[in-house]
Amino acid sequence: FNSQLAALPVTIFTVMSALARQHDAVNLGQGFPDQEGPQDMIRLAADALLDGQNQYAPLTGLPELRTAVAQANLRFQGITVDADSEIVVTSGATEALAASLMALIEPGDEVVLMEPLYDTYLPVIRQLGGIPRIVRLEAPDWALPRHALANAFSARTKAIILNSPMNPTGKVFTADELAFIASLVQQHDTFAICDEVYEHLVFNTPHISLMSLPGMRERCVRIGSAGKSFSLTGWKVGYVTAPAPLASVVAKAHQNLVFATAPNLQRAVAFGLNKDTDYFATLAQSMATQGTILASGLQRLGFNVLPYQGSYFVMADITPLANGLDDVAFTRLLTEQARVTAIPASAFYDTNPPRNLIRFAFCKRPEVLIEALNRLEAWK
Amino acid sequence: FNSQLAALPVTIFTVMSALARQHDAVNLGQGFPDQEGPQDMIRLAADALLDGQNQYAPLTGLPELRTAVAQANLRFQGITVDADSEIVVTSGATEALAASLMALIEPGDEVVLMEPLYDTYLPVIRQLGGIPRIVRLEAPDWALPRHALANAFSARTKAIILNSPMNPTGKVFTADELAFIASLVQQHDTFAICDEVYEHLVFNTPHISLMSLPGMRERCVRIGSAGKSFSLTGWKVGYVTAPAPLASVVAKAHQNLVFATAPNLQRAVAFGLNKDTDYFATLAQSMATQGTILASGLQRLGFNVLPYQGSYFVMADITPLANGLDDVAFTRLLTEQARVTAIPASAFYDTNPPRNLIRFAFCKRPEVLIEALNRLEAWK
Ligand SMILES: CSCCC(=O)C(=O)O
Ligand SMILES: CSCCC(=O)C(=O)O
Repeated sequence: FNSQLAALPVTIFTVMSALARQHDAVNLGQGFPDQEGPQDMIRLAADALLDGQNQYAPLTGLPELRTAVAQANLRFQGITVDADSEIVVTSGATEALAASLMALIEPGDEVVLMEPLYDTYLPVIRQLGGIPRIVRLEAPDWALPRHALANAFSARTKAIILNSPMNPTGKVFTADELAFIASLVQQHDTFAICDEVYEHLVFNTPHISLMSLPGMRERCVRIGSAGKSFSLTGWKVGYVTAPAPLASVVAKAHQNLVFATAPNLQRAVAFGLNKDTDYFATLAQSMATQGTILASGLQRLGFNVLPYQGSYFVMADITPLANGLDDVAFTRLLTEQARVTAIPASAFYDTNPPRNLIRFAFCKRPEVLIEALNRLEAWK
Repeated sequence: FNSQLAALPVTIFTVMSALARQHDAVNLGQGFPDQEGPQDMIRLAADALLDGQNQYAPLTGLPELRTAVAQANLRFQGITVDADSEIVVTSGATEALAASLMALIEPGDEVVLMEPLYDTYLPVIRQLGGIPRIVRLEAPDWALPRHALANAFSARTKAIILNSPMNPTGKVFTADELAFIASLVQQHDTFAICDEVYEHLVFNTPHISLMSLPGMRERCVRIGSAGKSFSLTGWKVGYVTAPAPLASVVAKAHQNLVFATAPNLQRAVAFGLNKDTDYFATLAQSMATQGTILASGLQRLGFNVLPYQGSYFVMADITPLANGLDDVAFTRLLTEQARVTAIPASAFYDTNPPRNLIRFAFCKRPEVLIEALNRLEAWK
């Protein structure tokens, strides 16, 4: 069998969700909301099924969804794109990321990444023969290490992956940091893969896409997620925005990987993207409230909660409570004894991870978060 | 950009479907039915959407669908598999194929294939650094060239891809041919990727899975397609059956490529797989009737129609009608002038294709096939 894949662990999200079920724990591990997305979208997706739309969608997506993604680029980021040639609909952001990397990388190409990082980035890069150049952001504030980042770029750099809002830290990159990254990308004549699945989940901070910066329009692959933007993670509808020559190569990767995505879900996502700005503001607001409930509760219980400005996630330093246990042992203990599940942050590092951080998801109803806090309190 | 992907043409199916739309042609190119799948499945998929099942499905698929796939293996092929560890649900057979190749191949490994072949096989193998060893089946009868096939195997062979029923030829491999292939696979201690998406579409011929042969249970990755088995190609639900150690590696490829597939569609497909044998027999029967309408009509019009025993497709030799035009020019002419679209068979070859064959899809209502035949008649 392929030795690299065979050696890969089953994703930590699956492992911890299974452990949560086994112990009937409140699952604040894997990032999925426990409230369904907009009923009108779900209803539309159901109606579209009954409407005779059940054969192959076009390779790059339904025209109505590509148009909606193009309009959202303009509305939310001021980016003008052509719906016909610059959008590719994918089966979720995971596929979008794999297809984008396939479109860009040749064996031997270097890709700059920031640690902690999402767990599919490295295996996909390595499978393509790419060479990761990892720069580590440090707790507690996850500031951009400008010097190290500049040094990670070389003549062999093909791309940087920028995840903002960032999983697992909840960091939202500032305008200043983005400008610095953009200058490196331009200086080295490379590309940026912008994983912006949490673009609408920012709290009292604007989300600025790297693609919206001067000179970056032709250098970015921007990835969005209907799952995250509409609390419908099961639908697995994602979208790529890229300059036309690159988008056409992403489409060819998509052609071999999946080919097309269910048309009824695409129609519903097109409808969702056309929702008024209130919908997105309300989603961000309720996520912010949930974040505050969880973060303040964890802080009260003795965790050192780290700052976050977006996403579904907050990181916590377990040192005050872990009695010397590392993150893996501690999350296991929490699941088994307190019956609350989190993700050990070491899963988001390649080598030599910190061992004192765990990630909690707050994309859950307030009463669920409070139940989790009560269980932690009772266990402590 | 990645030079291999950038050099890849847009799939012929997309090209010809676009041309068909442009000329308002009857589209007998891309293989998708024009009758929707079972209403009860569609209804169930719609109900499941409204039922709060819209977050991530498990990585390897819903338990109820894995169980249904395992039962179908037993019912239709007498193959006993474990639903928990030997089934992986994918976003269509295209993803299943990519994930299976990723699980098996290391750079330098050889893969034996039979030409004419489906258009994602070669680019995926090459992207993984695999080396294709192509054996050509020859019209009109597409008999297995045993000597050439045996010679294509070597100490570096990792796998053979066997597509039966075969696209684009409609060939169903015989028990004898399968036994010969099985002996080569065992003798060379390799694997077989069995693309059996048309498993239920065989006409007066049994479909025998290579996996059901003695000694092959542990050497096969068997790929099925809900799209093809239920005339719901847009849903993009596929499934892989493989021995547990290999299935777990396929799951890891799937983890990085897509992660999961829409749960409401999975529930409906589980229901569909449990349908009684009549459903599958009726589907095959109506497809057989449609095949006969098209094939006999084409023959009457002067095409040399080649034998087929399954799938959505029939190949035709255009020599008597093409006035020296090659397959590409002739399909273009047919689309523009007769307003009937087919696929030039050269798209299914790596190099030096025959230039006298085109593929017609008969997965269309009888009246549509008759309209196509009338248009061809009028044009001739
Ligand atoms: C695809 S499962 C992981 C979901 C997620 O994005 C996360 O928990 O980080
Ligand atoms: C994925 S589009 C191609 C459909 C098909 O299987 C074919 O026409 O051969």
